[in-house]
Amino acid sequence: MEKQKKKILCVGLVCLDIINVVDKYPEEDTDSRCVSQRWQRGGNASNTCTVLSLLGASCSFLGSVAAGGVANFIMADFALRAVDVSAVVWQVKGQTPCACCVVCPSTGSRTVVLSDMNLPDVTAADFSKVDLDQFQWIHWEGRNADEQVKMMKRVEKHNSTIPQHQRITVSVEIEKTREPLYQLFPLGDVVFVSKDVAHHFGFKSAEAAVRGFYSRVKPGAVLVCAWAEKGAAALGPDDVVLHSDSFPPEALVDTLGAGDTFNAAVIFTLSRGGSVQDALTFGCRVAGRKCGFHGYDGIGEHFKDDENFKAE
Amino acid sequence: MEKQKKKILCVGLVCLDIINVVDKYPEEDTDSRCVSQRWQRGGNASNTCTVLSLLGASCSFLGSVAAGGVANFIMADFALRAVDVSAVVWQVKGQTPCACCVVCPSTGSRTVVLSDMNLPDVTAADFSKVDLDQFQWIHWEGRNADEQVKMMKRVEKHNSTIPQHQRITVSVEIEKTREPLYQLFPLGDVVFVSKDVAHHFGFKSAEAAVRGFYSRVKPGAVLVCAWAEKGAAALGPDDVVLHSDSFPPEALVDTLGAGDTFNAAVIFTLSRGGSVQDALTFGCRVAGRKCGFHGYDGIGEHFKDDENFKAE
Repeated sequence: MEKQKKKILCVGLVCLDIINVVDKYPEEDTDSRCVSQRWQRGGNASNTCTVLSLLGASCSFLGSVAAGGVANFIMADFALRAVDVSAVVWQVKGQTPCACCVVCPSTGSRTVVLSDMNLPDVTAADFSKVDLDQFQWIHWEGRNADEQVKMMKRVEKHNSTIPQHQRITVSVEIEKTREPLYQLFPLGDVVFVSKDVAHHFGFKSAEAAVRGFYSRVKPGAVLVCAWAEKGAAALGPDDVVLHSDSFPPEALVDTLGAGDTFNAAVIFTLSRGGSVQDALTFGCRVAGRKCGFHGYDGIGEHFKDDENFKAE
Repeated sequence: MEKQKKKILCVGLVCLDIINVVDKYPEEDTDSRCVSQRWQRGGNASNTCTVLSLLGASCSFLGSVAAGGVANFIMADFALRAVDVSAVVWQVKGQTPCACCVVCPSTGSRTVVLSDMNLPDVTAADFSKVDLDQFQWIHWEGRNADEQVKMMKRVEKHNSTIPQHQRITVSVEIEKTREPLYQLFPLGDVVFVSKDVAHHFGFKSAEAAVRGFYSRVKPGAVLVCAWAEKGAAALGPDDVVLHSDSFPPEALVDTLGAGDTFNAAVIFTLSRGGSVQDALTFGCRVAGRKCGFHGYDGIGEHFKDDENFKAE
């Protein structure tokens, strides 16, 4: 199969976000009603799948779930988004994580209580069952890094046995400031590093971050860093730091999952042969637009006539 | 069909309670993990069905739900408990209510954020479709009282056309301090009035409450009032105030739904021809025991060899 016709696999977390919008953060030991409540499938890799699918890519999700009400909702929502879930690992212990979020627009606060899940992460053994021939691109949300390293090594080995133009592109997101995650820097062809991690290392801008972290990635890799309303930067082997401004919506409505949206739009563009600059700009545009509406539904609508689509 | 072989119908609310147990009530704008999280079908009438079913009664639930993740969980849980849901009204607008509860054992607090549901209540028109011949007993959780009055009048009319021993017993729970609910007092054969309502009217004990409210019920009715750790009292047409002490568990684990459990055990006993005193005592025993474990599962276990069962 032609590489670009193959699917994109995202490996990471899926959870249920129950989002309660309130007028005022509830005081302890009171009963109150929220203004609205919505249920949303969450988790970085899971959100990235949603956006990839809305943009028109075929994609699959690989992560752990445990049977129950949360999993039922999640699986139905994946189906709704046409995300392939045949690789999902059904765990017999633990529970699928569910976060109760209280969002208060008047103060701008978001308070999250995540369930202590005890759900095992996907292992290299689980990943060994994945038929790599189905995929053109595999994206990891950095989590259980030691196992994820083994998974990426498997792809590296697989790639070494096939022609260059058929090789699977590996991308990885390093979002949290956790030491073990940093071993993932040299393993991606495309590496997303968060503003949070950049801050932690003392970088004050996306440009400084991609420049500063570049020695950690492998030769030829592209390093990407998004910086909220300041846009995003990328650096590749040609040593030119690229930049895109952000595209803020008219009114900021919902920033939940904006980072995952950015990643998806970047992966989408690059997977179709777009340039890094195109990918960066498209990432900022889709993520910015997404902040103007609740959830992700609007993405398909706003971007279906986009030039990135016409260019296909 | 013999009256006692017929089912018990409970009319009222069903919702999903997501119970997050935490070490410390979360501060606004923070991320935290809870110690445990469980999903539980809630709502007074819905809980009463659960307990009736666990005690061994055939029962049905009548309430509103709207299709979606919450309803899926609820319907599966009703099925698990063998509660008949054929009378459930599927609404096309609104959403099934879902409450995010934060329970903090160290302070004893329980904080509830209920979703603003906009879910229409069951109407008299909905109730007109219920085949009354299936039921020996119908219990209402006082809510949309104006409509509920019409439903009860329908049962009154139905009862007037059939022999005494075949008549449907009507019970009603007046739990909240809302003026329109008080019109339900004269409509039940068995009336449950809450400690909250009793307090609101200035009564200082269950005994004072049943005495004080008795003029509001119809001739021949039984008025019941539970008073947490102080037990419960009842008053019937013989003008003798009955009392039962409470039966506290060794350790207080979970008081959620204890009142609904009490109501179920009282209805269960009376529906099988037990005396008011037996019903009161059994109500206190089952409710007390229930507070010693999470949820309701323990009820079947603890009471299946109970003398109230042997007496069947």
